[in-house]
Amino acid sequence: MTNLSSAGVLAPRGFAAGTTRAGIKPSGNPDLVLIHNQGPDFAAAAVFTRNRVVAAPVVVTRQAVANGQLRAVVINSGNANACNGQQGLADATEMTTLAAAALGVEAGDVAVCSTGLIGELMPMDKVRAGVTQAAGMGATGLDAAQAIMTTDTVPKMAVASRQGWSMGAMGKGVGMMAPSLATMLAVITTDAVASPEALHAALTKASGVTFNTLDVDGSTSTNDTVIVMASGASGITPTQEELDAAVLEVCASLADQMQADAEGVTKRVKITVTGTSSDAQALSAARTIGRDNLFKCAMFGSDPNWGRVLAAVGMASADMDPENISVYFNDQPVCVRSTGAPGAREVDLSGADIDVRVDLGTGGPGQAFVRTTDLSHAYVEINSAYSS
Amino acid sequence: MTNLSSAGVLAPRGFAAGTTRAGIKPSGNPDLVLIHNQGPDFAAAAVFTRNRVVAAPVVVTRQAVANGQLRAVVINSGNANACNGQQGLADATEMTTLAAAALGVEAGDVAVCSTGLIGELMPMDKVRAGVTQAAGMGATGLDAAQAIMTTDTVPKMAVASRQGWSMGAMGKGVGMMAPSLATMLAVITTDAVASPEALHAALTKASGVTFNTLDVDGSTSTNDTVIVMASGASGITPTQEELDAAVLEVCASLADQMQADAEGVTKRVKITVTGTSSDAQALSAARTIGRDNLFKCAMFGSDPNWGRVLAAVGMASADMDPENISVYFNDQPVCVRSTGAPGAREVDLSGADIDVRVDLGTGGPGQAFVRTTDLSHAYVEINSAYSS
Repeated sequence: MTNLSSAGVLAPRGFAAGTTRAGIKPSGNPDLVLIHNQGPDFAAAAVFTRNRVVAAPVVVTRQAVANGQLRAVVINSGNANACNGQQGLADATEMTTLAAAALGVEAGDVAVCSTGLIGELMPMDKVRAGVTQAAGMGATGLDAAQAIMTTDTVPKMAVASRQGWSMGAMGKGVGMMAPSLATMLAVITTDAVASPEALHAALTKASGVTFNTLDVDGSTSTNDTVIVMASGASGITPTQEELDAAVLEVCASLADQMQADAEGVTKRVKITVTGTSSDAQALSAARTIGRDNLFKCAMFGSDPNWGRVLAAVGMASADMDPENISVYFNDQPVCVRSTGAPGAREVDLSGADIDVRVDLGTGGPGQAFVRTTDLSHAYVEINSAYSS
Repeated sequence: MTNLSSAGVLAPRGFAAGTTRAGIKPSGNPDLVLIHNQGPDFAAAAVFTRNRVVAAPVVVTRQAVANGQLRAVVINSGNANACNGQQGLADATEMTTLAAAALGVEAGDVAVCSTGLIGELMPMDKVRAGVTQAAGMGATGLDAAQAIMTTDTVPKMAVASRQGWSMGAMGKGVGMMAPSLATMLAVITTDAVASPEALHAALTKASGVTFNTLDVDGSTSTNDTVIVMASGASGITPTQEELDAAVLEVCASLADQMQADAEGVTKRVKITVTGTSSDAQALSAARTIGRDNLFKCAMFGSDPNWGRVLAAVGMASADMDPENISVYFNDQPVCVRSTGAPGAREVDLSGADIDVRVDLGTGGPGQAFVRTTDLSHAYVEINSAYSS
């Protein structure tokens, strides 16, 4: 029995991967990956960052996936190829051309993803040599997952096994399509038969409750991309519900791994908001709390300082009754009707997982959650000297 | 010649102050202040936090100042009296009653301000004894400024001297009426003759370009309050322009002092945004950058990582041309037309003051600035164990 989870994007049939040390990363670690969908189907879908400043690879990949078909993805770490103007676009396009030539496919069927520093031109000499090397393929799913890491400390992979077909995934980063700490990239593969529309529907739905609920620091990358490709190699056509469930399973696993590996994380914090008019309002309020630095510092200190939750949520745009807000830490009430509950200062938050629940007190049906992390010394350390 | 700047709120004629160590702060430092306007005029105005969760003293003071008249302010540090329900309101009201009785004025003419931990009931026994002690008055402006400090490391005072009249001020906190790190409180006094309307107009105008441009961490206190009181003791009635200028002068000085003393600050960062449709849009974009933790960490590391400015501003709601954004660090272009400028990585950001200018490239007339700080280890340290 193969170790399915280390198979990652190669768990499904019909895919091959190649990696190399192209020299884009100063560390000399592997930094270039090719994922090749060998068919017989080439259905694909993708979702992208909501940032209005988008990196060149996002522009090129949006166009490549527009017809619902991809035969390969070329990914590099160590350079985001963002804010590089026309040269950046030309370089991203050339990356697809190089990968296409090496794999014998059309450049228009190749997606490109980049992650790393913004505003540095791609070292194209190294990229050209690297693509040729990577095209020798023969890499494992683990190799591929490792080669896309930047500040990640562990590779991130997931596999959903089904009767006769499977879904595999790899991801990097600690953030999301919407807010993101550094670039978040993920590639999902399946040997199921699925239309681009079915893949897109499944991906959009799954992203909404996985990557999009992860908010490490409110920052949003210029490069975030999640791609799903179906080879059809199993010959099996799952129902939309089955497809949805498998995409959700691997996305949820990657999102968990990203939260656990977020830069500087010492706490995993889930914030659920209820008691407002709509799910959208609840999400907005949960995000407002999850982005509040004072709250995040309190979590780092295992400090049950619920007043910061109230101060934060009071700035949210959601419907609320300011006199009737309740807060629970790890299921213990710490604030009831906007007033401190007995024992609130003694709640034990020393564990790595902290559950925060906030009822905005209107009686409305809206509810949503986000997952965030604490704000630690290590976060500051990691992010204060990234480009130098 | 008296040292006007250490006179603070007592520089103008017609005011007296009393302070005491009431025991509200665990440290035993002075924590209770009375400021008494002895007239002959009692005109007053105030501005407050925009947070929808407001502390009891804000509720009580809003009502007290509604008729444009105040005779005294009672202020405590060490407890915010926020999120304390009906008891909190009763306690805040009692504080005005106690101060009024001690000073021989009406409780309805006394404002109350509190700053400190949210969600702890006021230790009213200590407060009652403290107000009696403070009512002995005889404190200096410096004493008063010191007694309102919480995480402040230095007292904050300002004086604007004019021919025959003056304006004095004290403040605490490192934030603003809108976003605020901890509670921001300020009391401004003048011996000029001025109507409540004139005071309110001057205060609103000055706040907009001083306290409201200061955004340390995007958090907004439940207690922020700025009060201005005019005794008329000079007998001089300045024009609105003269009054505006004096209020602006002391507010600008306090805002500078707050930024310089912000929790954990090692850098003072001014972010100016131009080239968008309106000043409001420019302000919103400047705030988005100023609140971005990745950008703030880069500033801490003196790292000219301009890509984070683009990534941050791409999430702003302001009008922009994503292909035509320019960024300047300390007046050196680091990004032109959304592309890195030569020498951008070599810009020296090692000084304590960093100037960031961002042109959103639409050619529109909107412009605005915010002042923020870096995100440092000390910030995390200070804020991770505040309530314990």
